[in-house]
Amino acid sequence: MNVAVLAHERFPDRAKTAVGVLRYAEYDVTAVLDRDCAGERVSDHLSDGQDAPIVAGIDDVPHPVDALVVGVAPVGGDFDESWRPDVRRAIKRGCDVLSGLHYFFGDDEEFTTLADEHGAELRDLRRPLEDCTVSEGRAHEVDAEVVLTVGTDCSTGKMTTSAELVAAARERGLDAALVPTGQTGVLLANWGVVVDRVPSDFVAGAVERMVRERGDDHDLLVVEGQGSVVHPAYSAVTCGILHGAMPDALVCCHEAGREAIHGYESVEIPPLSEVAALYEDLAAPVADTTVAAGSLDTSGLDDADANRAVIEYATAIDAPATDPVRFGAGELLDALD
Amino acid sequence: MNVAVLAHERFPDRAKTAVGVLRYAEYDVTAVLDRDCAGERVSDHLSDGQDAPIVAGIDDVPHPVDALVVGVAPVGGDFDESWRPDVRRAIKRGCDVLSGLHYFFGDDEEFTTLADEHGAELRDLRRPLEDCTVSEGRAHEVDAEVVLTVGTDCSTGKMTTSAELVAAARERGLDAALVPTGQTGVLLANWGVVVDRVPSDFVAGAVERMVRERGDDHDLLVVEGQGSVVHPAYSAVTCGILHGAMPDALVCCHEAGREAIHGYESVEIPPLSEVAALYEDLAAPVADTTVAAGSLDTSGLDDADANRAVIEYATAIDAPATDPVRFGAGELLDALD
Repeated sequence: MNVAVLAHERFPDRAKTAVGVLRYAEYDVTAVLDRDCAGERVSDHLSDGQDAPIVAGIDDVPHPVDALVVGVAPVGGDFDESWRPDVRRAIKRGCDVLSGLHYFFGDDEEFTTLADEHGAELRDLRRPLEDCTVSEGRAHEVDAEVVLTVGTDCSTGKMTTSAELVAAARERGLDAALVPTGQTGVLLANWGVVVDRVPSDFVAGAVERMVRERGDDHDLLVVEGQGSVVHPAYSAVTCGILHGAMPDALVCCHEAGREAIHGYESVEIPPLSEVAALYEDLAAPVADTTVAAGSLDTSGLDDADANRAVIEYATAIDAPATDPVRFGAGELLDALD
Repeated sequence: MNVAVLAHERFPDRAKTAVGVLRYAEYDVTAVLDRDCAGERVSDHLSDGQDAPIVAGIDDVPHPVDALVVGVAPVGGDFDESWRPDVRRAIKRGCDVLSGLHYFFGDDEEFTTLADEHGAELRDLRRPLEDCTVSEGRAHEVDAEVVLTVGTDCSTGKMTTSAELVAAARERGLDAALVPTGQTGVLLANWGVVVDRVPSDFVAGAVERMVRERGDDHDLLVVEGQGSVVHPAYSAVTCGILHGAMPDALVCCHEAGREAIHGYESVEIPPLSEVAALYEDLAAPVADTTVAAGSLDTSGLDDADANRAVIEYATAIDAPATDPVRFGAGELLDALD
């Protein structure tokens, strides 16, 4: 499937869905839409994953594409009206729209009318499950080893680490699968539930259901975590996933140098050892689990500093650590054995 | 307002909404519907709150009533089809229906058609907010002291303790208000948000909004907690409320003798000191708060055992404790000063 990825004014640093699609999805990315860096290429910004031209709008995409993927997620998941002309023209070309926003394209009168006229599908990945259920506390019964990525904040590499872990495990011949819980993960796997949209009563239940649906068919399930247990706004999501997944092990994700919650600068991230302990203590009543490894995003550092930062992080959380993008996920996988 | 309260086969032990309405709401309860104990009276089961006859169905309610209140909340919040005849006949009599179920009466074709014909209103208290927002982490800015009730499990007296605290504070001349987060609280206060229905991303935001909406107009806000941080299914709700409310103090609610999570008997409640510490540790990154008091449900014990149990509980959580229903909420209020 050929796709164009919308990332206006945000590529690559504030367009983690776009970056995830470029790195891990099986779609062919024909172009990235970002009016701020039109004329450049993805490879000018990212050293790995697919390359593609960056263009100013959908009319500049060189080939026909099957779908427009919304590759950004502003705070609150709102639609930015400045995207409307591109979305409109994409639908007129018959493109499907894949979105993980809280905003539903399927509820937008202009888009649904156009989609009907032009035979396009509007896929809102965040639309809640119709048949939510509460957790029964039984995710631990599955045959697979269940690993959950957790973090010190949003955007600390939980999705990336999960995808890298699955890829590395498969390279070793393990039957590994991703349990996606966010818009990018669901986009990549074309399966899963965007749990931050699920009513809070049913978050654990939604995760439990996914784990039980796939858990007997694989050796390893890597559950994509969300948010952080120390995040003032999103901790409910994090906590529900932790208790719903009942993981055998946790991989704690952090970005080197980050000291406060992004967007909530008055909220300091506690000492890393305390964050790790808090995850273990919070899990304990429901699942006996430990932080078995750490994943550090060192993309802002040079190799020497990255090495130092990884060693410091491993010491802080008292577990093996690496940056799976820079150094590969092998060490994480070793720590999970 | 005169109401009948539906509690079939569950009154009083599994009908906590019904009991809350009888104890704390300003409605006049004309009758309780429970086909299993028809002919008895509320006072045969409860020693406090309003008395009313218990009848087998809506046709046996002696006087006309303004509304039928759904006073039970089965697991998952489903509608029990055995209630349909009573609901149907109530609407035909022009009664409104007030419900906190996950099931929406307003989406039931038979009920909406009947309601239109008979001028009745179907009020689904759990219907989600249309305009959810993420928390800004600012609830601590309000003038009021903010107290949150938390617990070792569901149904350990968080709503009751919250209502008793507000009543006791008002008796002392404080301007106190309840911030309701569950169906019973919203029913009692005729205001609030049933947060377990709110998408998990927005739970903290919904609570923050309520605290900020009322927090500068009162001396004391008592936020009704939900679930438990050690509950395998509902901890997401609990965690979102804790971080959204940013409370100055916590009151930890427990039922004497309860050792496992109700309905999840393999999940033991950890030692009470650990539960209290977990709440404090989980709150700490967002709000510096402590368990300032404990509320113990001793309804299953005689006075001597209740006294002993309260002392043991206070020792376990290292804070003053009482049973506010049996002994009054004065001690809790003292501990919050």
